[in-house]
Amino acid sequence: MTSRFPIRTDLAVEARESSLSGSGASQISGVLFQQQQAAGGRIQVSRVLVQNEKGARALGKPKGNYLTVEAQDLWKDEGGIHREVSRVLARQIRALLKEAGLSPSSRVLTAGLGNPAVTSDSLGPQVLGNLRVTRTLDREGTVSGIAPGVMAQTGMEAAEVIRGVIRETEPEALLVVDALAARSVRRLGTTIQLTDTGIHPGSGVGNRRSRLDASSMGIPVIAIGAPTVVGAAAIVYDAVENLLEGVEAEHRYQVVRELVESRLGPMIVTPKDVDDRVRRLSFVISEGLNIALLGDAYTGA
Amino acid sequence: MTSRFPIRTDLAVEARESSLSGSGASQISGVLFQQQQAAGGRIQVSRVLVQNEKGARALGKPKGNYLTVEAQDLWKDEGGIHREVSRVLARQIRALLKEAGLSPSSRVLTAGLGNPAVTSDSLGPQVLGNLRVTRTLDREGTVSGIAPGVMAQTGMEAAEVIRGVIRETEPEALLVVDALAARSVRRLGTTIQLTDTGIHPGSGVGNRRSRLDASSMGIPVIAIGAPTVVGAAAIVYDAVENLLEGVEAEHRYQVVRELVESRLGPMIVTPKDVDDRVRRLSFVISEGLNIALLGDAYTGA
Amino acid sequence: MTSRFPIRTDLAVEARESSLSGSGASQISGVLFQQQQAAGGRIQVSRVLVQNEKGARALGKPKGNYLTVEAQDLWKDEGGIHREVSRVLARQIRALLKEAGLSPSSRVLTAGLGNPAVTSDSLGPQVLGNLRVTRTLDREGTVSGIAPGVMAQTGMEAAEVIRGVIRETEPEALLVVDALAARSVRRLGTTIQLTDTGIHPGSGVGNRRSRLDASSMGIPVIAIGAPTVVGAAAIVYDAVENLLEGVEAEHRYQVVRELVESRLGPMIVTPKDVDDRVRRLSFVISEGLNIALLGDAYTGA
Amino acid sequence: MTSRFPIRTDLAVEARESSLSGSGASQISGVLFQQQQAAGGRIQVSRVLVQNEKGARALGKPKGNYLTVEAQDLWKDEGGIHREVSRVLARQIRALLKEAGLSPSSRVLTAGLGNPAVTSDSLGPQVLGNLRVTRTLDREGTVSGIAPGVMAQTGMEAAEVIRGVIRETEPEALLVVDALAARSVRRLGTTIQLTDTGIHPGSGVGNRRSRLDASSMGIPVIAIGAPTVVGAAAIVYDAVENLLEGVEAEHRYQVVRELVESRLGPMIVTPKDVDDRVRRLSFVISEGLNIALLGDAYTGA
Repeated sequence: MTSRFPIRTDLAVEARESSLSGSGASQISGVLFQQQQAAGGRIQVSRVLVQNEKGARALGKPKGNYLTVEAQDLWKDEGGIHREVSRVLARQIRALLKEAGLSPSSRVLTAGLGNPAVTSDSLGPQVLGNLRVTRTLDREGTVSGIAPGVMAQTGMEAAEVIRGVIRETEPEALLVVDALAARSVRRLGTTIQLTDTGIHPGSGVGNRRSRLDASSMGIPVIAIGAPTVVGAAAIVYDAVENLLEGVEAEHRYQVVRELVESRLGPMIVTPKDVDDRVRRLSFVISEGLNIALLGDAYTGA
Repeated sequence: MTSRFPIRTDLAVEARESSLSGSGASQISGVLFQQQQAAGGRIQVSRVLVQNEKGARALGKPKGNYLTVEAQDLWKDEGGIHREVSRVLARQIRALLKEAGLSPSSRVLTAGLGNPAVTSDSLGPQVLGNLRVTRTLDREGTVSGIAPGVMAQTGMEAAEVIRGVIRETEPEALLVVDALAARSVRRLGTTIQLTDTGIHPGSGVGNRRSRLDASSMGIPVIAIGAPTVVGAAAIVYDAVENLLEGVEAEHRYQVVRELVESRLGPMIVTPKDVDDRVRRLSFVISEGLNIALLGDAYTGA
Repeated sequence: MTSRFPIRTDLAVEARESSLSGSGASQISGVLFQQQQAAGGRIQVSRVLVQNEKGARALGKPKGNYLTVEAQDLWKDEGGIHREVSRVLARQIRALLKEAGLSPSSRVLTAGLGNPAVTSDSLGPQVLGNLRVTRTLDREGTVSGIAPGVMAQTGMEAAEVIRGVIRETEPEALLVVDALAARSVRRLGTTIQLTDTGIHPGSGVGNRRSRLDASSMGIPVIAIGAPTVVGAAAIVYDAVENLLEGVEAEHRYQVVRELVESRLGPMIVTPKDVDDRVRRLSFVISEGLNIALLGDAYTGA
Repeated sequence: MTSRFPIRTDLAVEARESSLSGSGASQISGVLFQQQQAAGGRIQVSRVLVQNEKGARALGKPKGNYLTVEAQDLWKDEGGIHREVSRVLARQIRALLKEAGLSPSSRVLTAGLGNPAVTSDSLGPQVLGNLRVTRTLDREGTVSGIAPGVMAQTGMEAAEVIRGVIRETEPEALLVVDALAARSVRRLGTTIQLTDTGIHPGSGVGNRRSRLDASSMGIPVIAIGAPTVVGAAAIVYDAVENLLEGVEAEHRYQVVRELVESRLGPMIVTPKDVDDRVRRLSFVISEGLNIALLGDAYTGA
């Protein structure tokens, strides 16, 4: 029996772990998993491929590719790991563009989702701030970017704004950058996920209500996200689980769900140095984008 | 003979003064002018109505209504004038909406043009920050807002972004807020202009390249602007004019044009307290919008 | 027996509740408690007076006055409660100044503690942004202000910076504004505490390491704080408590302490709309300060 | 006869040029001038040494060393010049520290002067944002930093705040970073000046009123500044000068002074892309500081 308690995670690797630990099995039908290392073992790259509907149900994630780049040193100020991670990201972005039948010189719109006034939700807008935008009305450049804001500030879904901009400016692909929620606090500031499945309702720090994928946008969508928060419910659940190892699971779920639904729903858990972690993530991701999209023309920040 | 030197101003009242002083006449054919006062004489409201193509040529401004609200105390921290100015603005916004066949409860998109990272160009984004946005996907609200950014940051014209958003969300009117360039330094922080003609190429602090009017947007467009800079050329021209009262005009134009084109084109003149002035203007304008659009439902900041 | 588990709260009213619920008693020796209402019951004002060392030990708070102003509607956008709360705060600030032998026209330095880049810790700097500073080198004004930053950014304790500024500019009182940690999520955005005991090590969102009180600063210190976060441990403890009503307390403490110390120490819980709540709190507090210190000279924001 | 019109410049190299052009001579008594190049001619380094009171009067600058680092490509996004300029700055900072009898590992306080809310005046605070601060209460680090704000916001002179912090934390040297006013628009974003004479009243974008030098601070002071504005008067004077080549100088001075004093005093001229130029300057300067002060321990941004 798989775990049924809806502790939210936006990371496919965590959804896989959770599903496996619920069932006791060592693999999930319809879900392929691969791992490799880079930078002398300091960077782990995992690939979760959700192959069919069965795999999608088991993980609670749409069919498609989920690449995870992870470096435990990423939130520290050490030894050039940032540049390495950016290069790994650039390779993955190029590979995903290629799989979508595109090239780095295709016309690409980058959207930075999230609320710039909430530190943990500001990853998307911060990445845009470092992005080299090259599109102009007259010249040849192909990279454009937009921060669509959040509904509380604009009265519009990010998806509405982006779809309008796509209709008007006709890019060939959409890259979406967003802050995510993880299951485990050790993911905060250390992990970046890329996927060709886009962004789905309930994901992102702000629980985006909008669907941002190839079918809603009409062009290929690559989502790049990094967890900056953990839901308060996850913290509580871990505590309860440790405490009640012998107690039947159903009772645990009930108590935690009650707490979650009544009081903790809108609460998020962040590390105190969330500003530093978000700044480093945004730098690494924007450099990854700049290298991927500008290539040799890009001489660095 | 009218003045032919293209000292730039975004204010119709200044274009009118300049045209009159060039010709020595007391009125301009095709241009109607009215003035009244409010708040016991502390607020002046002027109306320039450009009636036909002849008037448009004389002023270098499209046909339409230009309302100017002016209060010399506006940039100071004094005696409640801010609230009065907001109320006058609210009345004018409602009147312009009515002339366009709309009401305060029509669906309105407000766009804040400009670059939030340049103080003198940040009026539009700052107004959005204070605007009460009420549109939601499910409820009844009608006010939405967007800061489309500037081309150097997004790779897109503001007009492209806004047109896309209009196509997608179908508002009934567009309100555009922008920082303007004036001819005279005494206008900075004291004057607000409303017009039903929209924004035209070459206007705004950033010399917007995009046309934002009813014909390009497909819905009525009301532009609300306030001057925060004077072009460097205007300062130079004034100096030269004072100095060379007896000298023929053609020589003056030549010298100044040379300076302007070669060195000063991209230079702007701002007061040192530009941050305070922009903050006050943005507060007054957003309150004007809130009162106009929310009416009795709005109990104040 | 009183509760011994160190769930952190910066609010004296919560420390009192926690101490009472641990002991089952209805009052604490050495601690006086009073309550009253304002604005037709929409605002509660409580006073906790820690009279002696016995009371200080029971509450884990230094001897002195703790005033709490609470309004459940404060984080909502409703009916003018903000102005009422500012007026109540102004009265309390004046009363505390008077008890310290000072008047509203005494020379006052206001320090806004915290990290402007972390939304939940930015209350102090945001209050400074709205404060009317009147001190000048030549004129008569008496209000000055400083945001000393956080050690990670300056390499200095806030207390070092402030003590230096006091030695140099010789104010008669120090007002310190800081974001606090509460025990209960319902306090976030609804509660403001004033105390004449200053700020003590371990308090504030950032767990300030510096002591800021009359004895370390050499002048009277009034601290104004508002909770914007709850420690992750508090959330966990509540869950465990609900779950294990029949289980002995010692076991609970042990499990939760382990979690807290190993993984959750640096984690904080915030509401998703923390930006709105902090903005409203900072507005209300700065208006309270402006009214208290400028009185009739202050005509409002 | 030397030029007597007080067109303001904070750069010693411009004061020297202006003095020479007024007199027609090729050198100034009491002022030594040297030039060299770096980075294959892309960077010019000049040294103006004001040797005595006579030289100080001729230039209107205190006795001491003025080093100017200039790169015309600095405000562009090109070919790694930023890193080269940072390295040249680092060498100069170390040389100035050495001349003051100090080393890179001496205890250094860096102060970023200016108003973060005015783009052209935000250089100092932006440099602090990138500075690696290493001082802590317990460990060995020696670099601390403070942004003292501007009087309109704090009610205190920057000099008061900094002197207080020095008394309290006892650094061995003060590094002050500030935005400057130049005489020529081509200096904006391309030139950085270092001097061991500190900051003097009337200098900086905000016309600092405070004196920040070794005698007022009690420790060696090194000022690092970069021009981001030109006074409006300079622009006007250039126009008048071109126009009136044959006219006697006295008349010119009179007209321009009148304009300057009556209307343009508080007006500043900035390029429209002032945000980009300030961001690049702040990056180059903070990297220069990081390399100078951290040396091999610093692996880059």
